[in-house]
Amino acid sequence: MHSSTVEALVRRDQFVWSFGPDMAPAISVEPGDAVRLETNDCFHGQVRSELDLPGTIDSSKVNAATGPIEVRGAMPGDTLVVELLEVNPGPRGAAMVTPGQGQLAHRGLQPTTRMFDVADGVVRMNERVSFPARPMVGVIGVATDGEIAPTLDAGRHGGNLDDNLHGPGASVLLPVRQPGAMLAIGDMHAAMGDGEVCGTGVEIAGDVLIRVGVLAGVQSTWPLAVLPDAWVTHGTAHEDLTAAVDAACDEAGRLLVDEWGFTVEDALIFL
Amino acid sequence: MHSSTVEALVRRDQFVWSFGPDMAPAISVEPGDAVRLETNDCFHGQVRSELDLPGTIDSSKVNAATGPIEVRGAMPGDTLVVELLEVNPGPRGAAMVTPGQGQLAHRGLQPTTRMFDVADGVVRMNERVSFPARPMVGVIGVATDGEIAPTLDAGRHGGNLDDNLHGPGASVLLPVRQPGAMLAIGDMHAAMGDGEVCGTGVEIAGDVLIRVGVLAGVQSTWPLAVLPDAWVTHGTAHEDLTAAVDAACDEAGRLLVDEWGFTVEDALIFL
Repeated sequence: MHSSTVEALVRRDQFVWSFGPDMAPAISVEPGDAVRLETNDCFHGQVRSELDLPGTIDSSKVNAATGPIEVRGAMPGDTLVVELLEVNPGPRGAAMVTPGQGQLAHRGLQPTTRMFDVADGVVRMNERVSFPARPMVGVIGVATDGEIAPTLDAGRHGGNLDDNLHGPGASVLLPVRQPGAMLAIGDMHAAMGDGEVCGTGVEIAGDVLIRVGVLAGVQSTWPLAVLPDAWVTHGTAHEDLTAAVDAACDEAGRLLVDEWGFTVEDALIFL
Repeated sequence: MHSSTVEALVRRDQFVWSFGPDMAPAISVEPGDAVRLETNDCFHGQVRSELDLPGTIDSSKVNAATGPIEVRGAMPGDTLVVELLEVNPGPRGAAMVTPGQGQLAHRGLQPTTRMFDVADGVVRMNERVSFPARPMVGVIGVATDGEIAPTLDAGRHGGNLDDNLHGPGASVLLPVRQPGAMLAIGDMHAAMGDGEVCGTGVEIAGDVLIRVGVLAGVQSTWPLAVLPDAWVTHGTAHEDLTAAVDAACDEAGRLLVDEWGFTVEDALIFL
């Protein structure tokens, strides 16, 4: 495998609003290359203060994903490996409450925007509330085998996975469906809960340093995150939460059986 | 508050199969007292080897909870605080696969029992697979305000919460419904995943050291776990996973509003 110390750069104005089968590369790199991506915040710069409320922004301009990055030699049937080396949020993020959305909607909600200062690994909500930054990317995906998937959606191609474990040190494995894979990344959060309970994380622009690799002939069926101490499967193709849990467990079981030689019973017990 | 250095003891043969409104105490202690409970494994000693398969055990004898412990002075409208000081698993645990149960049931399952050795903080599954012990108690609850709740069930009284964060260092807060609270604890796991994917954790007998306290006049509506860095709410009164998530988020939001003075919008954003 080729390994380069030169970083390629994808600028913030090179982005897509959807993943599809025909994606023209913004840049072309070799497996082993490091690439730095400047990412836009999910609101695409439309939210600059707490006066920019939900309803006032153009909702067709959300979740831009920087790219696409063509990884030369990646072919359908391979798996793309995206090592997240750095996820660097900018200094200021935003979160929003949209009435009618989220788990507390029944309590009656005012349209609300909150700005957050981010510095030295700390996210400051207000004079009373701060918490550790846990930067991650919400959108990471590749070209599809046919459908047009807006960057707001998630699926087998990746997309808006919103997995708060997709931070520095994680590798995200994605199934290659088109020559060159056509990777795009966006929707950074300075921090996010276990799910976007209000509909957003701490949405923020920033930059991401990755290294791309290709597992030739290794066919993956889902996005998979590889952490130092865990594999994380995703049940993203299901709207229903119970079905999604079932799918994520099934994929984890499959990996234990196929990659580690567990019996299916031992895989179930281990899970 | 009274605080004693003498440990009271509740023996393994002092247990209940259900929580109800009328529970006769096995022991009576003061707030501030430490109590050691010997707990049975959930199978009540019926599983001694991998030949003891599901279907061969008496399923009416599962999840014995050691107790009840009367905490003198605890009254309906108060909150019982159970500090889990120690959760000590025994040397040998068991897990089971029952065909038709669990997320991999569609793959076709053989009835299976696996025994685990537990020593020095490590759970050994077989010669190839070991993992860190994370001991916790599955069942922790108090007398109800009316219903009879088998120890297999969970509800506002606690019961079979199966929260893998209920280990040493956690405090579990439970709503007192009857004079003396009538606490009982059982169903220890040497380790458990995020949910019992196969229907069991590493089921094991052991002993638990607790300290009990009473928050007089503090009315809690749900079991709540207090960890060093988090409050953990439970949506246990719902069969449906989405409804349970909604309930747990709602309770967390309520706590942020009522106990910390958040606006409901800021609570939603913080979550």
